[in-house]
Amino acid sequence: MSLTRTLGTCYYPEHWPEDIWAEDAARMADLGLIWVRIGEFAWSRLEPTPGDLHFDWLDRAIDTLSNAGLKVVLGTPTATPPRWMLDRHPDMLAVDPEGHPRRFGSRRHYCFSRDAYRDEAVRITRLLAQRFGRKVHAWQTDNEYGCHDTIYSYSDAARRGFRDWLAQKYQSTGALNHAWGNIFWSMDYDSFDQVDLPNLTVTEPNPAHALEFRRFSSDQVARFNGAQVAAIRAHSDAPISHNYMGRIVEFDHFTTGRQMEIATWDSYPLGVLEDRLEDSAEHKRRYARQGDPDFQAFHHDLYRAVGENGRWWVMEQQPGPVNWAPHNPAPLPGMVRFWTWEAFAHGAECVAYFRWRQVPFAQEQYHAGLLRPDSVEAEGFAEAAQVACELKDMPRVERSQAPVALVFDYDSAWSWAVQPQGEGCDYFRLVFELYRGLRKLGLSIDIIPPDTASVDGYSLVLVPGVTTLSKPLKAAIAATNAQVVLGPRTNAKTHSFSIPVPLPPAIPGLDVTVSRVETLRHDMPLAAENGGNVKLWFEQIKTSDEIIETTENGAPILVKSGHLSYLAGWPDEVLLERILIRAASIVGLNPQPLPRDIRVRNTGKTRFTFNHGPMPVEFGGQIIPAAGLLWTRT
Amino acid sequence: MSLTRTLGTCYYPEHWPEDIWAEDAARMADLGLIWVRIGEFAWSRLEPTPGDLHFDWLDRAIDTLSNAGLKVVLGTPTATPPRWMLDRHPDMLAVDPEGHPRRFGSRRHYCFSRDAYRDEAVRITRLLAQRFGRKVHAWQTDNEYGCHDTIYSYSDAARRGFRDWLAQKYQSTGALNHAWGNIFWSMDYDSFDQVDLPNLTVTEPNPAHALEFRRFSSDQVARFNGAQVAAIRAHSDAPISHNYMGRIVEFDHFTTGRQMEIATWDSYPLGVLEDRLEDSAEHKRRYARQGDPDFQAFHHDLYRAVGENGRWWVMEQQPGPVNWAPHNPAPLPGMVRFWTWEAFAHGAECVAYFRWRQVPFAQEQYHAGLLRPDSVEAEGFAEAAQVACELKDMPRVERSQAPVALVFDYDSAWSWAVQPQGEGCDYFRLVFELYRGLRKLGLSIDIIPPDTASVDGYSLVLVPGVTTLSKPLKAAIAATNAQVVLGPRTNAKTHSFSIPVPLPPAIPGLDVTVSRVETLRHDMPLAAENGGNVKLWFEQIKTSDEIIETTENGAPILVKSGHLSYLAGWPDEVLLERILIRAASIVGLNPQPLPRDIRVRNTGKTRFTFNHGPMPVEFGGQIIPAAGLLWTRT
Amino acid sequence: MSLTRTLGTCYYPEHWPEDIWAEDAARMADLGLIWVRIGEFAWSRLEPTPGDLHFDWLDRAIDTLSNAGLKVVLGTPTATPPRWMLDRHPDMLAVDPEGHPRRFGSRRHYCFSRDAYRDEAVRITRLLAQRFGRKVHAWQTDNEYGCHDTIYSYSDAARRGFRDWLAQKYQSTGALNHAWGNIFWSMDYDSFDQVDLPNLTVTEPNPAHALEFRRFSSDQVARFNGAQVAAIRAHSDAPISHNYMGRIVEFDHFTTGRQMEIATWDSYPLGVLEDRLEDSAEHKRRYARQGDPDFQAFHHDLYRAVGENGRWWVMEQQPGPVNWAPHNPAPLPGMVRFWTWEAFAHGAECVAYFRWRQVPFAQEQYHAGLLRPDSVEAEGFAEAAQVACELKDMPRVERSQAPVALVFDYDSAWSWAVQPQGEGCDYFRLVFELYRGLRKLGLSIDIIPPDTASVDGYSLVLVPGVTTLSKPLKAAIAATNAQVVLGPRTNAKTHSFSIPVPLPPAIPGLDVTVSRVETLRHDMPLAAENGGNVKLWFEQIKTSDEIIETTENGAPILVKSGHLSYLAGWPDEVLLERILIRAASIVGLNPQPLPRDIRVRNTGKTRFTFNHGPMPVEFGGQIIPAAGLLWTRT
Repeated sequence: MSLTRTLGTCYYPEHWPEDIWAEDAARMADLGLIWVRIGEFAWSRLEPTPGDLHFDWLDRAIDTLSNAGLKVVLGTPTATPPRWMLDRHPDMLAVDPEGHPRRFGSRRHYCFSRDAYRDEAVRITRLLAQRFGRKVHAWQTDNEYGCHDTIYSYSDAARRGFRDWLAQKYQSTGALNHAWGNIFWSMDYDSFDQVDLPNLTVTEPNPAHALEFRRFSSDQVARFNGAQVAAIRAHSDAPISHNYMGRIVEFDHFTTGRQMEIATWDSYPLGVLEDRLEDSAEHKRRYARQGDPDFQAFHHDLYRAVGENGRWWVMEQQPGPVNWAPHNPAPLPGMVRFWTWEAFAHGAECVAYFRWRQVPFAQEQYHAGLLRPDSVEAEGFAEAAQVACELKDMPRVERSQAPVALVFDYDSAWSWAVQPQGEGCDYFRLVFELYRGLRKLGLSIDIIPPDTASVDGYSLVLVPGVTTLSKPLKAAIAATNAQVVLGPRTNAKTHSFSIPVPLPPAIPGLDVTVSRVETLRHDMPLAAENGGNVKLWFEQIKTSDEIIETTENGAPILVKSGHLSYLAGWPDEVLLERILIRAASIVGLNPQPLPRDIRVRNTGKTRFTFNHGPMPVEFGGQIIPAAGLLWTRT
Repeated sequence: MSLTRTLGTCYYPEHWPEDIWAEDAARMADLGLIWVRIGEFAWSRLEPTPGDLHFDWLDRAIDTLSNAGLKVVLGTPTATPPRWMLDRHPDMLAVDPEGHPRRFGSRRHYCFSRDAYRDEAVRITRLLAQRFGRKVHAWQTDNEYGCHDTIYSYSDAARRGFRDWLAQKYQSTGALNHAWGNIFWSMDYDSFDQVDLPNLTVTEPNPAHALEFRRFSSDQVARFNGAQVAAIRAHSDAPISHNYMGRIVEFDHFTTGRQMEIATWDSYPLGVLEDRLEDSAEHKRRYARQGDPDFQAFHHDLYRAVGENGRWWVMEQQPGPVNWAPHNPAPLPGMVRFWTWEAFAHGAECVAYFRWRQVPFAQEQYHAGLLRPDSVEAEGFAEAAQVACELKDMPRVERSQAPVALVFDYDSAWSWAVQPQGEGCDYFRLVFELYRGLRKLGLSIDIIPPDTASVDGYSLVLVPGVTTLSKPLKAAIAATNAQVVLGPRTNAKTHSFSIPVPLPPAIPGLDVTVSRVETLRHDMPLAAENGGNVKLWFEQIKTSDEIIETTENGAPILVKSGHLSYLAGWPDEVLLERILIRAASIVGLNPQPLPRDIRVRNTGKTRFTFNHGPMPVEFGGQIIPAAGLLWTRT
Repeated sequence: MSLTRTLGTCYYPEHWPEDIWAEDAARMADLGLIWVRIGEFAWSRLEPTPGDLHFDWLDRAIDTLSNAGLKVVLGTPTATPPRWMLDRHPDMLAVDPEGHPRRFGSRRHYCFSRDAYRDEAVRITRLLAQRFGRKVHAWQTDNEYGCHDTIYSYSDAARRGFRDWLAQKYQSTGALNHAWGNIFWSMDYDSFDQVDLPNLTVTEPNPAHALEFRRFSSDQVARFNGAQVAAIRAHSDAPISHNYMGRIVEFDHFTTGRQMEIATWDSYPLGVLEDRLEDSAEHKRRYARQGDPDFQAFHHDLYRAVGENGRWWVMEQQPGPVNWAPHNPAPLPGMVRFWTWEAFAHGAECVAYFRWRQVPFAQEQYHAGLLRPDSVEAEGFAEAAQVACELKDMPRVERSQAPVALVFDYDSAWSWAVQPQGEGCDYFRLVFELYRGLRKLGLSIDIIPPDTASVDGYSLVLVPGVTTLSKPLKAAIAATNAQVVLGPRTNAKTHSFSIPVPLPPAIPGLDVTVSRVETLRHDMPLAAENGGNVKLWFEQIKTSDEIIETTENGAPILVKSGHLSYLAGWPDEVLLERILIRAASIVGLNPQPLPRDIRVRNTGKTRFTFNHGPMPVEFGGQIIPAAGLLWTRT
């Protein structure tokens, strides 16, 4: 199957006088854009007072855009319920861990567990689908679930919902007490109505309790999203999507992903580098105007796995400086084009720039658009135009399987979070560092979900930090010919978050027992015998398997039996490189360490090479400028 | 007009046995003090139970002091309402941003928006004015508005007040919605009763909302203060003052300043250095026993602008170690004298030491006085005596205009605060760094308010960071012959906090358009072509004016057209020095970089030279010891 | 009197199937354990619903253990009241300083001031004592008072209790107002019902208010504990203990200590190093797998003073990695043995390992036990076995008085905490640094309480930081022939927390007056004339006594008159060593600086030498390996 590659933008007709809509639409089309997303924050104009629907302006906006040849993605406006909604449902607000209702005045001010609000969200969604279901070419539900820490709510509705959810899952408090080990500190319950949310306890709550609350909260997102999807489906055949974000792991994106056709995400490389990565100041300085070399690629690959049949977009692409990070520098000239091509290289169907025109009022007035507030073209405009031009000459590329698979599991992210055992022991970070390590060797990667039933076609499969392996994945691992590297913390927990006995990892084919776990200060790694270190997390294992890597004291770090390897700690960059080179070489992947700033992405017949650095780099006989990329047919 | 120069102290007769008052008064007079401030925390002794007035002791205290030849400043005791007040008005307390009432047990436990408490404050003020209005020589309202973060209150009273204030200002919610751009995230209101205070929102509130709340809160202070002033005026001709603080920008001091005759402030050089300045550890170590070289001078110059006709005092002068900073070292020997003379050099009428005797109980028992708790003279006593002695020989000095004017605008401080766009982007800091840069070139400065209608007589006018230029100031800038340096962020916002179109700064006479704004990590400044850097804030400008300074990449930093210059970023020390030398040289001010620790202040006929360093400095052919100063007739 | 030395463990029969109890008991006995603590978290199994007692299983567990030859310590389960308790007493929860009830779901979820809960605690304790009072060999009340910041509660019950406590102490609000100096900011009270708890005040409350709240809170712990002790005493002759912790100073352990026979504590050397010590990263790295060289010894010596007749145990000894510190490394091989012997060297009667078997569920599943979750022996098992073996050959040692006494005073810890006057000015830290200084000179120390009436038999007595000397201690100091070093901050406060006049320290025999106090930035110590520095805290003193140490500027640091010395500041390591060597030499103690990692402990006839470092150390002609120790008869 070959991929379309299109461009788009995000537009807010309600922010601008109607008399400039047509000109805006014409300029979009002239620029070479195909898609335009609208509507997702417009509820107060669509329904200014309860039941008083004003859909006419939206109809005209869609017509205007369509008449210019653009295809519309219509967003449901449920991330921004109007002020009157709060009068109707005063308890619709989410509640923070301290017990404060999170108030009106910005956005996402609702609790996923509050049925009355969900019904309102479904109602407006249904009305929009009825009116526009045949007119628009795609849908977006809500906006950025999880933004502003909005997955967890400690409201009364959440408390009631959690109790019901537990009652359905466990059927009896006896079963729950047993599963959680509540006897530990006399925490047994006699009734599900005694179970509280796990906030404000004297010291940490039972981690099983905390984990189940995370699972419940994730389910509430899926329930909320699913209800909207159903309301749209009843009236529209257009594909449905949601715009996910970077490094939001508080709900299971694979679950919501299965409800819809397309996964999209909002990519802000400079903001996330500054705001959401633990890397050194030196790293942040080096990439301040380009973004982290792997963060965007990681999410491209992740959301390719989340979308149905690998369908995914960038719904919001940073087009210049933003407004919300601790500091907000401007991208290097060329980066807007660069990021767009990087997304295409990873299989994006569409890259849409957020936003068409910089808005001069309210919260995001220093967030760049393709146009300045005075409608003059901003920097990103010309770069988008260049991409549009370049696209015409590019062959369509085949979708293809990568040689390496990397499992990503939201449930494990929650497990690590409720019991990190050491500061810095973060599941996303562990997986991301392995991903980066693979990329630095020139490898292309598919991210796969934790219930994958077959890893056929992969040469190398990495399963880092999955605390409870699913049955299908266990079977897939056993059945494959690929090299599989598991650990650390594999199968470290039962579903109800106890240490299993016999002790982990209990993988058929490996004779490994984790007899002790320790966590390490950032400044006190454990030296590996052959260079590099284990950092943060280390497991003492008992094994009769072949020992590949050890500490200086001879403790096993990596052991191997047949096609299975177990990694007993968190490797630093040097150790990781050696481990990955060895594993990849065994299966003939020919791993080659790249220059620091260079990354490549192989698709079916095209090899893309990107220079993420601030300076030109000579690579493969060519000079690649800063913010530059190459593509070659393979 | 020539200035008096007097000394004073702060005294609490209610803290000491009545039988030592006379001796205390005699010692004060012997020391050469003229003024004594009393009464501002004594409400519980003036009115032990509601309506039961005990003014007799205060009468005797005033008589005792007056009989010794001292003049009394009487403080209204409204910063410390007694415990019974809370029984009468349980909702008088301010509420913190988390929603907690800020409770009784220290001071300033009231909400400015609570009318019932304001009435009580006016009542006790009126009673004091009736009784003592002809007997005292000056007044102080309340104490240190803004201390302990007390300007903002999130109480019900504040909420009601804010709604009324908005309703009066905007008249309709439609006007408010439009001005704030509430359509952005469906934040429109149908009624002013729907508008909440901007705390506890899910993510940041609309900055226009936040800014208006700051304006409202500032107005509440002026309303509270104005009511006290009116109550005093009805019964007394003595001048009225309030004791402001250092780096409190949460209310507009120019507004309250216009209600009264004298501006005073409380100067604690060592405490503020440690507690309120962002400077490096090296800087804080160097000046730990002397205080920052410019902070006191800045506020002297600021409050000279706040006082009517330039009348200002230091109402509380640090006389030794204090108790409230993260660390509280002792001043170098000589610093109490030094600080006193520095204030006089900047035009103070009076410097009053806080406090006469160190109090051995309650919150401030490690705050030095002129006397120790056992009435033995502390270090500061002899230094005050030395000043009193020196004053006799000093000629009276003429009040005179400085050659340089620097605009300070509280509204801009709030604008920057609600939308810093980058950590460290603080309005006060920007202005203060420009002030320091001028001082390091030996220049004397007048600070002027943002509605100044004429800058006649100034050679150089700096207008940094004023986000909305007032009409009078715009006219003054246009009309002057002085060199005027504007920017960064000049006119960046409309009054209702939108980006204006046409884009900023839109100043007649300058062809400058800010096409993009970026903020920079502290460790990632932008190098300027000729040395130094732009840090934190940088604007991309389009211009046809003369380009004076650029980045290494050729982006304009400073442009000039006629007498107007625009500065497109935040200059570091090196770049700033070059910019200021150039601007000052054009108008013949002969700027001369001073040794690091030296500062000068020119008055009409006297030039004061201060060594702020910990070591002697040779300057102008003389050795100035640590904590030393010189004065020379010019 | 010679000491028994025994080993024990902590066991939770309720966590394991009854059919393995007998095997567990047999393995314990085989290992050489004598004591086993049980029951302290088992309330929900002892009384699953109110009044429905299930003591039979505990009876069988005790029998099983006893039949194997073990002695049982029975813990009262009052640190973990069951969930139904909260239904009966919804207001039993403690309240945090922000006003949030601290909820069910972990442990210690009760307020000491809540009488209804105290009655329940006494009820279950009485029932257990009635049933098992003749069967068990020792008792433990509750568990780790103060863990998880549980001493202070801001509940309604605490508020009422505090008012009553104040009314009893002061009898009239006039007396309280006078004692606290409430006139200072009009904080006078008319009624005890007006006194609130000292949280959420606008700025800091009156320190006298804060100090009294700390005293009240400490008394509430003693009241709670005393009630349990009385309930046990009525039915059992077995000794009673409580398991204290490291660096918990929020209640007076001497007070509770006097209610019981044995003091015990829970020693987690690696967790506390990482979590509760301010030392440098280098120090924390060096000792990451061994623990701080002095922290355990300090508490051994402290709890020897807390226990009746010096009786004390380690009730919980870390046997491997734990789960609760920021990072949780594994101990060096040998450290479990090492820590056990260190406790015996300081006089412990018993060292009990926490816990027998690592629990695979709930909060502490990564806390090591002597056994792994699968019942295989973990690392600590063999080390415990080694100690058990070694004990057979060791002679019994005589209890003996150390040559040096160091006063420790909880009330002073609270004084420093309510008025530190500078960041880092912490009473425990000051005392601990003096203790470490003594240890580094090879000295053995007795810690003594602040109301000690005689210091006979000591050669050197240190009294650092005691803010109000008790009458007995004053008399003891005056009467002794020992060298006594007082200060800093000696007698700095009256009982009601005012500065006394005449000024401190007012010690007969010393002519010292503290005329001024200053605190110093961490990076700005004051150099001493002969090397080293004063840091953090420095007092300017007036004196005619002999000056032993001065600053470079000649200000006295240490003065001496007869057997009394006064230390006017906080000495750093270098200065402290010189001061201690001088004082110890005067009295013939022959202080010898030890190698960095070496510490010694002299008992009556045995000298123990410990290598706390990560590498072997040559000392006294022998190589002591890492985690190694020596004992020699003296």
